[in-house]
Amino acid sequence: MAVYTEVADEELDAFIASYDIGALTSCKGIAEGVENSNYLVQTEAGRYILTLYEKRVAPKDLPYFLALMEHLAARGIRCPLPVHDREGRNLRKLAGRPAALINFLDGVSVRRASIEQCASLGKALGRLHVAGESFAQTRANSLSLPGWGPLANAIGERADTIIRGLAGEMGKELAHLDKAWPRDLPQGVIHADLFPDNVFFLGQEVSGLIDFYFACTDMLAYDIAICLNAWCFESDASFNITKARAFLQAYEGVRPLTTNELAALPTLARGAALRFLLTRSYDWLNTDGEALVKRKDPNEYLRKLRFHRRVKSYRDYGLGEH
Amino acid sequence: MAVYTEVADEELDAFIASYDIGALTSCKGIAEGVENSNYLVQTEAGRYILTLYEKRVAPKDLPYFLALMEHLAARGIRCPLPVHDREGRNLRKLAGRPAALINFLDGVSVRRASIEQCASLGKALGRLHVAGESFAQTRANSLSLPGWGPLANAIGERADTIIRGLAGEMGKELAHLDKAWPRDLPQGVIHADLFPDNVFFLGQEVSGLIDFYFACTDMLAYDIAICLNAWCFESDASFNITKARAFLQAYEGVRPLTTNELAALPTLARGAALRFLLTRSYDWLNTDGEALVKRKDPNEYLRKLRFHRRVKSYRDYGLGEH
Repeated sequence: MAVYTEVADEELDAFIASYDIGALTSCKGIAEGVENSNYLVQTEAGRYILTLYEKRVAPKDLPYFLALMEHLAARGIRCPLPVHDREGRNLRKLAGRPAALINFLDGVSVRRASIEQCASLGKALGRLHVAGESFAQTRANSLSLPGWGPLANAIGERADTIIRGLAGEMGKELAHLDKAWPRDLPQGVIHADLFPDNVFFLGQEVSGLIDFYFACTDMLAYDIAICLNAWCFESDASFNITKARAFLQAYEGVRPLTTNELAALPTLARGAALRFLLTRSYDWLNTDGEALVKRKDPNEYLRKLRFHRRVKSYRDYGLGEH
Repeated sequence: MAVYTEVADEELDAFIASYDIGALTSCKGIAEGVENSNYLVQTEAGRYILTLYEKRVAPKDLPYFLALMEHLAARGIRCPLPVHDREGRNLRKLAGRPAALINFLDGVSVRRASIEQCASLGKALGRLHVAGESFAQTRANSLSLPGWGPLANAIGERADTIIRGLAGEMGKELAHLDKAWPRDLPQGVIHADLFPDNVFFLGQEVSGLIDFYFACTDMLAYDIAICLNAWCFESDASFNITKARAFLQAYEGVRPLTTNELAALPTLARGAALRFLLTRSYDWLNTDGEALVKRKDPNEYLRKLRFHRRVKSYRDYGLGEH
């Protein structure tokens, strides 16, 4: 849920006029993406999303995100494509914020994906990773292992006010991952936040991937681990191995996993669960319950983390012997 | 700013499938209208607004609002037109709330209208009043004179915590209006909330009137008085007589005002200013500052009320001798 910044009429008109997209016919604030202000803009030429970047996205990273979307879109990935203004710029300023106009993607995000949709997602993620191979720019993942320790420290003992014993459990998990975290897996562009909110479907097929504002350079299999967490558990915290199998097999149809990646999958899944447990716990403690942004339950990710801790091998995620 | 109720995927799909509008291609929560949940829905057949009615709209009034929109749209007024499902119903249930699907209107609401836009608004309001003449249903205006006393009582002395002396000033104004309020003016359908948020423009022309959820049967000239308040003051509280003249003359081009209506205009304008002063004061005192709905400044309407109190005749609103 977003839309924080209001744009004055004259400013919006002048902004739209600086693109070669005809006159504005409609503009609605919409609830989409991370904490940016998003507007669905219609002009004589078509539909666009206007994003005003709020404080959570670092302005210095915006050229990376926009260049990445252009790179991927040019390779057939259905992702937002930044529109260039008459002077060739894809990054602008509007209402005092960095702003970009991107094309509109058809599709609906689902709360509970079907098995077929999980398979389509696996294929889309595989294609994203392959298309990203030729992208020259890099960006460190600030929310991977080196970032978790400081985050856990910032949360501290207050974690126990959310769930009793949480601080200790986080600490033990961090100590384990610090030793077990894989180092030599294939790296590349990862989306890093491919939750159901950020995937559009038309029927059973993925029609678009959005919200690349956590994208970075990291182990490709870590993106898979994030998806296993975000897509393959039911609301009662049970793991749906059928969905995981469909997702992983479809991914491997595009980009087969190496032996090392397969072996590391349970550890990566624990790491991904811890990452969202940490950020959700931090947000839980630092967000006013009445604020615009809905707090997400940290407990969901604690349960997922505990599941992955019991996993013996990648076969527990539904993949057959490789 | 709205969107409170989330709709489950399966429920939404079934809902859309019950209309003859093709498959869903997109659905975005948007910030629009009073405190209802609104979604911009796209299907193979076109664009629609899906509204889930939240607590502020009384379910028993919904058939009136929907019938009114159909009546007006059939007479060429550009307002939302409810879509009927395959069983002929325009009012449904979704996610436990009353829900309606209406057609999408192009256009952009403006924060600061131009003189031409005020003229176009006057014409649109005149046409709305004429088109409403043949509408058989009626609905009492709960926010006219009889409703103001109880509202002022509910606010009570706490008004002085907003602006010193406000409680006394409200009381005096109420006592005056109680005696001076006109009784025998032409009645009909009024929009009753025709603020800039609820009017769309394409360029200088009105392209749509929305949010009929305060519509009711009352003096037509009271609707004019609401618009004088909502459209003809600048942000520094100065009255823009050029805009008022443009608005009133354009209105009279469609529906000339009677001598009694002209004479009552300053009193109606005071009443309209008091109505919004009262509701804003009430909301100010009863809305958490952190809540989703932005509180509107009561002081704006106190200043407008004081302006109208100094007005001697309709000529002070820019109209020439009739």
